[in-house]
Amino acid sequence: MLDLKKIKKAYERVSGVVHRTPFTYAPILSQLSGYEVYLKKENLQRTGAFKLRGAFNKIAALIEAGERGGVVASSAGNHAQGVAFSAKYFDIEATIVMPESTPLTKILGVKELGAKVILHGSNYDEAYAYAKSYGEENNFTFVHPFADSEVMAGQGTITLEMIEEVEDLDAVVVPVGGGGLISGISVAAKALQPSIKMIGISAEGAPAMKQSYEAKTPVDTTSVRTIADGIAVRDTSPITLEYILKNVDVFETVCDDEIASAILFLLEKQKVLVEGAGAVGVAALLHGKLDLPKGSKVGIVLSGGNIDVTMLSLIIEKGLMKSSRKMKLLVTLVDKPGALQSLTEILTKVGANIVQIGYDRTSTDLEFGDAHVSVSLETKGEEHQAEIRARLKEGGFPFKEEN
Amino acid sequence: MLDLKKIKKAYERVSGVVHRTPFTYAPILSQLSGYEVYLKKENLQRTGAFKLRGAFNKIAALIEAGERGGVVASSAGNHAQGVAFSAKYFDIEATIVMPESTPLTKILGVKELGAKVILHGSNYDEAYAYAKSYGEENNFTFVHPFADSEVMAGQGTITLEMIEEVEDLDAVVVPVGGGGLISGISVAAKALQPSIKMIGISAEGAPAMKQSYEAKTPVDTTSVRTIADGIAVRDTSPITLEYILKNVDVFETVCDDEIASAILFLLEKQKVLVEGAGAVGVAALLHGKLDLPKGSKVGIVLSGGNIDVTMLSLIIEKGLMKSSRKMKLLVTLVDKPGALQSLTEILTKVGANIVQIGYDRTSTDLEFGDAHVSVSLETKGEEHQAEIRARLKEGGFPFKEEN
Repeated sequence: MLDLKKIKKAYERVSGVVHRTPFTYAPILSQLSGYEVYLKKENLQRTGAFKLRGAFNKIAALIEAGERGGVVASSAGNHAQGVAFSAKYFDIEATIVMPESTPLTKILGVKELGAKVILHGSNYDEAYAYAKSYGEENNFTFVHPFADSEVMAGQGTITLEMIEEVEDLDAVVVPVGGGGLISGISVAAKALQPSIKMIGISAEGAPAMKQSYEAKTPVDTTSVRTIADGIAVRDTSPITLEYILKNVDVFETVCDDEIASAILFLLEKQKVLVEGAGAVGVAALLHGKLDLPKGSKVGIVLSGGNIDVTMLSLIIEKGLMKSSRKMKLLVTLVDKPGALQSLTEILTKVGANIVQIGYDRTSTDLEFGDAHVSVSLETKGEEHQAEIRARLKEGGFPFKEEN
Repeated sequence: MLDLKKIKKAYERVSGVVHRTPFTYAPILSQLSGYEVYLKKENLQRTGAFKLRGAFNKIAALIEAGERGGVVASSAGNHAQGVAFSAKYFDIEATIVMPESTPLTKILGVKELGAKVILHGSNYDEAYAYAKSYGEENNFTFVHPFADSEVMAGQGTITLEMIEEVEDLDAVVVPVGGGGLISGISVAAKALQPSIKMIGISAEGAPAMKQSYEAKTPVDTTSVRTIADGIAVRDTSPITLEYILKNVDVFETVCDDEIASAILFLLEKQKVLVEGAGAVGVAALLHGKLDLPKGSKVGIVLSGGNIDVTMLSLIIEKGLMKSSRKMKLLVTLVDKPGALQSLTEILTKVGANIVQIGYDRTSTDLEFGDAHVSVSLETKGEEHQAEIRARLKEGGFPFKEEN
């Protein structure tokens, strides 16, 4: 049973080990939204995510109970790091089962923390099943990523820090996957300050908990697909659903494009790296999905920062295209000496930097004697792109734009 | 004349407007270096850099003196944003002169803060000269980016926050371009706690102040070239040099590769975005350039986070290659149906994700009947790459590697 007392006990255990992360006023987001926005930066937490709080509290409770026989968990990500860190802290054995496709950063992160890693199964469910049976065979305690009252209590310590630092919060926005984070946060919030509105945000591609919330009964989904891998949960736990049904006032979803633009916003404007799951709250804010009175004091939990830089690189590239800072053109020109020179001359004059170029004279949709040049340009925004289009037309270069 | 009194006065002025940025213990850097490392995250400052402190203090001092006639500054970056923000705060006019090549992010950042932007000159010196004459013509006060005692006093407020939060610092590491930041920080530090070792770090490609420090007299350089644009200063100010000669104990430089790897480290491990200039301290730490006793308490100033995401994207790509998470191969195969299939089969089996591919059958260094396939692969580290090389050899595919 999860209650405020358990969360306060958890806070005693985690204090001094987990970072008290900043809960910072965000001027730009406040101006954009008309709210007073504060960001709880759990991406700056040790191990890069809030999951450490729950895992540490759980393992500390085991140690207090004299159980030092080792732990096992299944996770491709932040829970794994939280468990590994905490086990190392208490000097007990930890085994993490991860799906075979787990990205390198996440595997290394756990190994560096001294845990044993077993790669097993093609998805989370297979890793989960294996971890449970592996735990039973070896007498290791299985640490569930969310459906565990000590784990949820650890996550709930975030509320204690937020409420201590900012008075009279009107709403708190929390990413929802399995629901452990919002269960912990909302139980503490509703106990301490019942007027706080609890807003849960899931990824559109992983809507199990949202559907369960609406149906008021656990709904399982058959597949998940989202860049927010930290909340890509297929099945609904009846345990977290109960707290969510009781405490959550509003439940919204955001799509991958919205999440990607929030990641880029947080990087460029707030100078922090946030993973997909961590960005859903800001995505909801930026895309007008929080329907709160003007001037509301809103706390948004940035739950983690463990995003693969390869993915980040893709998000930046797409973000540059969307925000008119990059454009791709397919220009048709006459296939003769000097033709490319006159094209690059136009692009130079208009101040567009060429970052990629290709030349093709054999495409079947070309007239004989013509050629296609594909160019990627760095541009300075919508006005600049309009100027480039105008100059190319003036210069007599037909072109198509790629998106 | 810059002294502690002036810095304390500045702190009264800036408090409540500039963020008190986190000064956080960094466990991973501490473990790697053997020191006790704290990061002063001025990249999380309003406007994304420490420069706000100095600009705000300067303009606040002007306002106190009844001078509301407007200000002008020349800067392609952080100083510009600091001046624009502060002028807007006090509701006076601000004009920023920027070189014509200034990236879009920086122009927009300043415009959003309500300042007038003039793009002038092909480099900083031309913009600087124009800003001075423009200021004289229009009776605007010129706000120098560093050689001004109020500006330096504002930067010095960082020391007050660091010393209050972490007792008995042994050393403070500070990026050096024009020298305003280290002048302010070191004057406060040496007044309050003279035992603190002051360590300045410049970019190898912008060594004017380092050379001046060694020559004990201002040395100007003819050109600068570094990814740390925030400290790319060509000429030495005798004003800041005087404080630096008096207070700085050690002066080092780092190269662009070292800076890039520090940016990537801070992004991946600390989840914060830091610009080139802001990363030089961590670059020096990571590359063994801080020669301090084991266990020293070291504060490193991350001075700013305003890096163009296009540049960041390049840094990530290069960083992935360097850390064996990406590899580029030029594979030779027989130009017939099924050849590419057998190559991709090997790559699939070994778990290497193909992210780019090209096919060429006309290169002059090919035998007739052969073709070149260029592939970029996502890989999981050095071991994984060794396995890929071995499998390709087994499969009879000759290949070359690109770096």
